[in-house]
Amino acid sequence: MHVKVRERPITALFDPASVAVVGASEDTRKWGNWLAQGALRGESHRPAYLVNHRAGETMLGRRAYRSLDELPEAPDLVVIAVPATAVDATVTSALAAGARAIVIISAGRSEADAGLAQRVRAAGAVLLGPNCLGVLDAGRRLELVPNPLPAGSIGLISQSGNLALELGLLAAPEGLGFSRFVSLGNQADLDAGDLIAEFAAHDATELIALYVEDFRDGRRFARAAAAAVSSGKPVVALAIDRTGAGARAAQSHTGALASDAAAIDAAFAAAGIDRVRTPRELIDAAQALLRCPAARGRRVAVLGDGGGHGSIAAAVATRAGLEVPELSEAVTTPLRDALPAAAGVSNPIDLAGGAEQDVHAFDRIALDLLSCGEVDGLFITGYFGGYAEYSPDTAAEELRTAELIGAAATRTARPIVTHTMYPRGAAAQALRHAGVPVYASVEQAAYALALLADRGGRHPEPIPELPDPEPAANGDGYLAARALLAGAGIRFVVHHEVTSADEAAAAALQIGYPVVLKALGAQTHKSDAGGVVLDIAGEAALRAAYARVAAALDPERCTVERMAPLSDGIELLIGARWDSRFGPIAVAGSGGLYAEILRDTAVRLAPVSAPEAEAMLRSLRIAPLLCGARGRPPLDIGAAATALAALSRVAAAHPELAELEINPLLVTRTEAIALDARFIHGPHHAQERESAVHLHP
Amino acid sequence: MHVKVRERPITALFDPASVAVVGASEDTRKWGNWLAQGALRGESHRPAYLVNHRAGETMLGRRAYRSLDELPEAPDLVVIAVPATAVDATVTSALAAGARAIVIISAGRSEADAGLAQRVRAAGAVLLGPNCLGVLDAGRRLELVPNPLPAGSIGLISQSGNLALELGLLAAPEGLGFSRFVSLGNQADLDAGDLIAEFAAHDATELIALYVEDFRDGRRFARAAAAAVSSGKPVVALAIDRTGAGARAAQSHTGALASDAAAIDAAFAAAGIDRVRTPRELIDAAQALLRCPAARGRRVAVLGDGGGHGSIAAAVATRAGLEVPELSEAVTTPLRDALPAAAGVSNPIDLAGGAEQDVHAFDRIALDLLSCGEVDGLFITGYFGGYAEYSPDTAAEELRTAELIGAAATRTARPIVTHTMYPRGAAAQALRHAGVPVYASVEQAAYALALLADRGGRHPEPIPELPDPEPAANGDGYLAARALLAGAGIRFVVHHEVTSADEAAAAALQIGYPVVLKALGAQTHKSDAGGVVLDIAGEAALRAAYARVAAALDPERCTVERMAPLSDGIELLIGARWDSRFGPIAVAGSGGLYAEILRDTAVRLAPVSAPEAEAMLRSLRIAPLLCGARGRPPLDIGAAATALAALSRVAAAHPELAELEINPLLVTRTEAIALDARFIHGPHHAQERESAVHLHP
Repeated sequence: MHVKVRERPITALFDPASVAVVGASEDTRKWGNWLAQGALRGESHRPAYLVNHRAGETMLGRRAYRSLDELPEAPDLVVIAVPATAVDATVTSALAAGARAIVIISAGRSEADAGLAQRVRAAGAVLLGPNCLGVLDAGRRLELVPNPLPAGSIGLISQSGNLALELGLLAAPEGLGFSRFVSLGNQADLDAGDLIAEFAAHDATELIALYVEDFRDGRRFARAAAAAVSSGKPVVALAIDRTGAGARAAQSHTGALASDAAAIDAAFAAAGIDRVRTPRELIDAAQALLRCPAARGRRVAVLGDGGGHGSIAAAVATRAGLEVPELSEAVTTPLRDALPAAAGVSNPIDLAGGAEQDVHAFDRIALDLLSCGEVDGLFITGYFGGYAEYSPDTAAEELRTAELIGAAATRTARPIVTHTMYPRGAAAQALRHAGVPVYASVEQAAYALALLADRGGRHPEPIPELPDPEPAANGDGYLAARALLAGAGIRFVVHHEVTSADEAAAAALQIGYPVVLKALGAQTHKSDAGGVVLDIAGEAALRAAYARVAAALDPERCTVERMAPLSDGIELLIGARWDSRFGPIAVAGSGGLYAEILRDTAVRLAPVSAPEAEAMLRSLRIAPLLCGARGRPPLDIGAAATALAALSRVAAAHPELAELEINPLLVTRTEAIALDARFIHGPHHAQERESAVHLHP
Repeated sequence: MHVKVRERPITALFDPASVAVVGASEDTRKWGNWLAQGALRGESHRPAYLVNHRAGETMLGRRAYRSLDELPEAPDLVVIAVPATAVDATVTSALAAGARAIVIISAGRSEADAGLAQRVRAAGAVLLGPNCLGVLDAGRRLELVPNPLPAGSIGLISQSGNLALELGLLAAPEGLGFSRFVSLGNQADLDAGDLIAEFAAHDATELIALYVEDFRDGRRFARAAAAAVSSGKPVVALAIDRTGAGARAAQSHTGALASDAAAIDAAFAAAGIDRVRTPRELIDAAQALLRCPAARGRRVAVLGDGGGHGSIAAAVATRAGLEVPELSEAVTTPLRDALPAAAGVSNPIDLAGGAEQDVHAFDRIALDLLSCGEVDGLFITGYFGGYAEYSPDTAAEELRTAELIGAAATRTARPIVTHTMYPRGAAAQALRHAGVPVYASVEQAAYALALLADRGGRHPEPIPELPDPEPAANGDGYLAARALLAGAGIRFVVHHEVTSADEAAAAALQIGYPVVLKALGAQTHKSDAGGVVLDIAGEAALRAAYARVAAALDPERCTVERMAPLSDGIELLIGARWDSRFGPIAVAGSGGLYAEILRDTAVRLAPVSAPEAEAMLRSLRIAPLLCGARGRPPLDIGAAATALAALSRVAAAHPELAELEINPLLVTRTEAIALDARFIHGPHHAQERESAVHLHP
């Protein structure tokens, strides 16, 4: 990995030798008060200085300072909560006073952010914000935030304060909390990537949670996350898909399919980030990842007391992408012997009241199931946690059972995930303490187990490096795209350029009928406009088609091409889009007419290697058609992968191209051949090239 | 609607004049004790008699009876909790004693169930169970159940006791509860359909909730549910998809696509049942349906205080199938004037701290948004419920705001759904009291709002009646299916049957090249086995193909057919499957190679009318290709719908056919023409026909 924590004093943000709060206040409705109170709670660790230019002699029982230059020592960390107009001058005096880290709570003026950041960097300091909500380090008792958060092992980086608050409310009942919290604000200087790297190096942080609205340099962000993940700290991120304008601006199928949302998916997948959609999913994922090993496969056993819960859990698990296999007789026979006659033993396993007699049925069967080699994880659902109501003895046995369930998971190094109707009860707490995640609903538990299976099935690749940009591609339209891509070794169907019906007829004779006639021009989606005539069987038909096309579209020129054997193969789309945050994104999918309708696509950060390209193709829903399902001959998926890899390299070397696609790429038993191609120049030609250069490591 | 409550004493089950518990016990670990305790809690409403053949003089402070014939009056309702071997004799004595309703808690022997039910019916009584967990009527204080349930307006019919318990635990904190609960057990006599009809007629029940594992006569069930829904009582059902064996047994694409799960979907859609997958979804749906009107469309405004929550809610709502449209300037201008500069006003609407100054921003903006005509519902997310922490005054204003939010929903007759970080707080309770559903997570709220939009978009059709069965179809294979379907008016491609290469060549001359050669025989998925040769251009190629097919497959005969203009149209699959519970299910989907891979299907109870068939086709993902998207000419969707309706009528009249399909049906601009067809006889030929007859109303 190429990301290093810059040699900058980021640690001063979390463990400063002293803190000064500028804009401190005694008014309990003000940020300056909340931050001052927080700073004072850390006085046992470091001096806290309260600064306000309108202050009297004292504030909150401490000496008050009118300005930073009055302080008895250089303030290591300065928190600024002053009116926006005073921010600039306050930063100047903070740097003059010797601050190594500055947190700007005040809203910034984004046009001034760059200048601020430059000055801070020049002074060898770091800046968080402007427009941030503070910073917290539980272990160092640094609480420069408006609200408390429960302590724990999650490092949280968020662009929303209320979201952090909700995460705290959701985490606490699960026994989870936060080692550190950083509110990102405008990221004028420190950005998400910097802070991920810093958290990865922080011992008390075991998992990094993110809510990011603005990824800035997306590849740098992804590299930082990948480094954290490969160092053993899961990164769980809540990201919003940009919709609307961005999606609407797409001009090709590729633009629509490799959308902003897909670019995030591609980058997260490459980095090994677990993507979540909601605060609850984030905490549910964190609970699973902090308490469980990844599952080695997708096969799970479902165990409950009562048939309804087991059936529901099995169905929900299946919909979540897990497998609930029938168990062999070697497993079911001893279960049948040990359980009531009405019990279900095949999977789901229904104790049918068997645990009312002996709640240890749960831990015994848990160990048996996880040891049997037929499942990769266990899903306990329903009533467990409720046996305590029978008697004090049962309550004690239930707690002991919870510990033994945890021990079974540890011993077999396989995950156990539980849903219980009694998530706040003592047995649920005992499960959590024993390292078993507990969820209040069956869907949350299934989600968590599927996430553990996803992690187990992951094979991270390095974040791809971008090649040096090549000279910008000229022209536009089919022929220009064809020339560019053919130059990279991609095979196209035979073609002749023609400007008259006679030339067309001569070309067709040379190629051999049937042929295709294509009008060349700036039309998008040519086939919709009648500019492509397929399967022309002879000269008369060709001349008639030429006349029709010429009358309707008046093209500068046409091509005559060999009619490819469409019914012998499958049409794919391969393409790439240049994303302003994450750079070039490769896409593969069903092609032809169905491309946008099916939205059967795979996306990755470009460039991709041929094996990565093949993995993309094999992940498509139509993969069985490529691989030779049901006795059909397999198609030349290797040739298709080679073409996709080549296209992705072209895209990565041409940041001026917003979109680039071949559609269709016809894949037959013996070849992959491009039948049409196009590219689209970016709306901000020069700027995109610059950001591309910026993306180089 | 054709469903009537049978003139049977079902009301004696819920409001009996007296109750006897047979198998009553003083042992608090036994069902007989729990039921006896429950019966005694209702003594203010009706006498309760405790019966046990081993009882002493008294039990639980009441006189104990050794047998039912000792009772001072005829017991109206008898609950039986005795060993399985004693059930039969106890039923006999209950009927002899004059019972009008019998509840059998004891596990039954399913082979004896039918006999029991027959005897009970003959005596003019009704039977619930065996193997049920009891019955509850909150308004009549009938509590013959092992656990209490919170009281409310949900009528619950469940085949699982622990599930009812979980539903109670989930309902209570939302201010919801149960008017009645029935545990179905084996449904030897009374089944889900009977009880739905009974609940529909019960004033205190406002919504019917179901957990059913066994639908029995599925069309009767669906008719009962449809009648309840059209009488204004939503029916929310948790049903498990049968997977595994059933799905594996499918022999055609249709069998796989019109699966058991799809049959449930078709029946539920026809009946207007809201299908849920988990207990939490059931309670979430119930809260929305009991508190909100349906939404008239899918457009929602999202309102929060803090940008993160609004963005997340908008993204989650979009994924749930809702639309979050940009609002017009007429709406956004007044918002911009009223809110802080940092506020977002377009949608999502972010108050950006505006509610900290004045929490009534929520109710004012709620009313404005729901009145503006640009949205059909409102999604409030995030911090609301937390302002109470600022001061007692703010707390009071927040409660008042909650009431006014409820008033805005009522006044505009549009749903407001809320997610709050503080779901157990006073403001959340106030929202619930004001008729606004409150959810603890953004995904639950989005789910609820999407469900309300689904309901608003529904246009219920009557559950279709089955025609009289026609004489069983003979033979099998393509020609038999073709004859059956062509007889129903479906157009097939021109064909000639041939038994030699010479006959094939003669047929092709008559039809005109290109032609198709098909080998006839019992192979499934012919195209996979090389038994279909497409696009044969001339006689030499035809003779070569014939020789190849004859050598490989040795078919009894072949057909030579016109090669249909595949590239002029779209290939569909239309078919039907006879489901053992719900009868014939019609399916339409993408056809050809892609059929099972895409799983782009629509299913309905058969037979379907042509307009219903067209609605099915228009609901497919590929519908834009049929309807003429992006300037392409529209295809003859009407002809395709006519063919589907005809096929569905054939299927409904042929219960001996397990599966029946046309694949592909080629739809062009001018016609819909069947290119292949097959049917599969049911594995239980006679039995299926009988069950079909049984399905007649």
